Amino acid sequence: NAELTNTTELEIPGTVAELMEPALGLLPEQATVQDAIEYLRNSDNARQITYLYAVDGDERLTGLVVIRDLLLASPDQPLSEIMLPSPFALTEQMDAGDAITAAVHRHYPVYPVVDGDGRLRGVVRGWRLFERQAIEITAQTGQMVGVDKDERVYTGFWEAFRMRHPWLQINLVTAFAAAFVVGLFEDTITRIVALAAFLPVLAGQSGNTGSQALAITLRGLTLGDMKDQPIARVLRKEALLGALNGLLVGLVAGAAMWLYAAQTGAAGAPMLALTILIAMVGACTSSGIFGVLVPITLRRFGADPATASSIFLTTFTDIVGMGLMLMLATTLVSA
Amino acid sequence: NAELTNTTELEIPGTVAELMEPALGLLPEQATVQDAIEYLRNSDNARQITYLYAVDGDERLTGLVVIRDLLLASPDQPLSEIMLPSPFALTEQMDAGDAITAAVHRHYPVYPVVDGDGRLRGVVRGWRLFERQAIEITAQTGQMVGVDKDERVYTGFWEAFRMRHPWLQINLVTAFAAAFVVGLFEDTITRIVALAAFLPVLAGQSGNTGSQALAITLRGLTLGDMKDQPIARVLRKEALLGALNGLLVGLVAGAAMWLYAAQTGAAGAPMLALTILIAMVGACTSSGIFGVLVPITLRRFGADPATASSIFLTTFTDIVGMGLMLMLATTLVSA
Repeated sequence: NAELTNTTELEIPGTVAELMEPALGLLPEQATVQDAIEYLRNSDNARQITYLYAVDGDERLTGLVVIRDLLLASPDQPLSEIMLPSPFALTEQMDAGDAITAAVHRHYPVYPVVDGDGRLRGVVRGWRLFERQAIEITAQTGQMVGVDKDERVYTGFWEAFRMRHPWLQINLVTAFAAAFVVGLFEDTITRIVALAAFLPVLAGQSGNTGSQALAITLRGLTLGDMKDQPIARVLRKEALLGALNGLLVGLVAGAAMWLYAAQTGAAGAPMLALTILIAMVGACTSSGIFGVLVPITLRRFGADPATASSIFLTTFTDIVGMGLMLMLATTLVSA
Repeated sequence: NAELTNTTELEIPGTVAELMEPALGLLPEQATVQDAIEYLRNSDNARQITYLYAVDGDERLTGLVVIRDLLLASPDQPLSEIMLPSPFALTEQMDAGDAITAAVHRHYPVYPVVDGDGRLRGVVRGWRLFERQAIEITAQTGQMVGVDKDERVYTGFWEAFRMRHPWLQINLVTAFAAAFVVGLFEDTITRIVALAAFLPVLAGQSGNTGSQALAITLRGLTLGDMKDQPIARVLRKEALLGALNGLLVGLVAGAAMWLYAAQTGAAGAPMLALTILIAMVGACTSSGIFGVLVPITLRRFGADPATASSIFLTTFTDIVGMGLMLMLATTLVSA
């Protein structure tokens, strides 16, 4: 599973080049501290300079000079003696997501950006990376239900409509699949009509259980927590959580069904309650599993792990849950 | 609605004091540039100093000195001449969320923190605020379905169970409310059993439509976009989006129901199709409205706008949608 667990970068579109601004404060590495101070005094842009960058004869970045260190050094020292050599740098072609992952543990105010040959091409300010990250992460909740990551509350009506509607039609097609499964058991529902009222309960309950697993998996992918977590361990935990949650919820729901069926004088109240209980355990267990598998699978196929994940999840859980309940009812409950 | 629209701070727990570290580099405002340079040269912690802080005789923060400006000034100038006077500062009691909102447009590497009398108490590094923000935002998706904001993918089984389970029981109670509504129309379902298969379709469809509105409203609250948006405008837009999406999805769903009913020789196929269409428009319109109202209302009552929002939303949409469909079917479709 090494391949699966190695998929934990942030999903941020675009490259570093898009967030870059021109680099100021380039100096040859042989320049002295006094040269650097003169450079700053004569620069029109001194106030925008956070670090100085030392470069070699081919404009390759060889070091980073913290301006505070100019004060601490003697004036005739060369920059090569006080610079931080081979400093961390982003590359132009780097994905913005990879850059954020690299930056999140460094927290520098400014990052130098180099090309393939190590030549300094510009800088990216740290807050730009974080700002991009915040905007991206807040898009996830919407992406799960088919909202485009570019939509904001001020997006126009028709643009919002154009971006959201296709996913609602896709959701309808997947809902038809679940309805088709229910349709196979029309005779059972005619016989035990209380099952109809329980279909949305089961769908809602397993959907919510699966959404919990989905949310925690997505959060793990986004924050990089999944790096240290074997997928098998996460799957086992969510399957067991689904089973236990399904059991306790199923006991309450089954008891309610028993009471209801007994009160209305329906036949087979105990078996009906057992049907609800088993269906709830089965539906919630599988929804816990799907909650982990959907985002992991989306990621594996190169998609954003959040994209329509809630739509895919409910499709699976509805079909499994309602199919299981109606099959059990058909088998277990005699008229 | 001024009160409602004025509720757009980020929902981050804790205060600035929790993120604070001791301030280094305090100097009297009368000190000269040369004094400051000597201070830095003799300080053991010079490498951790990003700015110097100028204070008056009562230790009140009066200015911020950028170290680069020490290089640009003459040695005998007092700090009061080169400092940024009355600099922006956080206060100890400030909510972390307010601090992030203030920082997001400033992007300083370090923020001074003062007490109620303006005395410098410490500093907060900018990346700490952003890191806190990223962790908070990634919690939203889970909070919507009853996952605690402290749960991560590595949280233990029993802790995850303890935090998630109560919300699933609450979800069950709300699902019973919807099931109760469905139960009121048992006779109608017995008569037109195809409606049973359509209950989860309608619930899923209006739930997804409402989740889109909910997601975009939450995103607006988190990113501060709601500041410039009157609630009435957002409500009208989401209601209309729900209506249009419901109309187009309802046409497809109604047509499918018509075909299905006609094929199985059920009576009243056209009226059944009309029932589906109207119910879908009604359910999706109200779910668009609920998608905006749920987080706004949670916020208004002092809660996190994401908390269990999806659970509340689906409760409303299920009751309205399924109730409407079954009521219409009872009235419109003759056996």
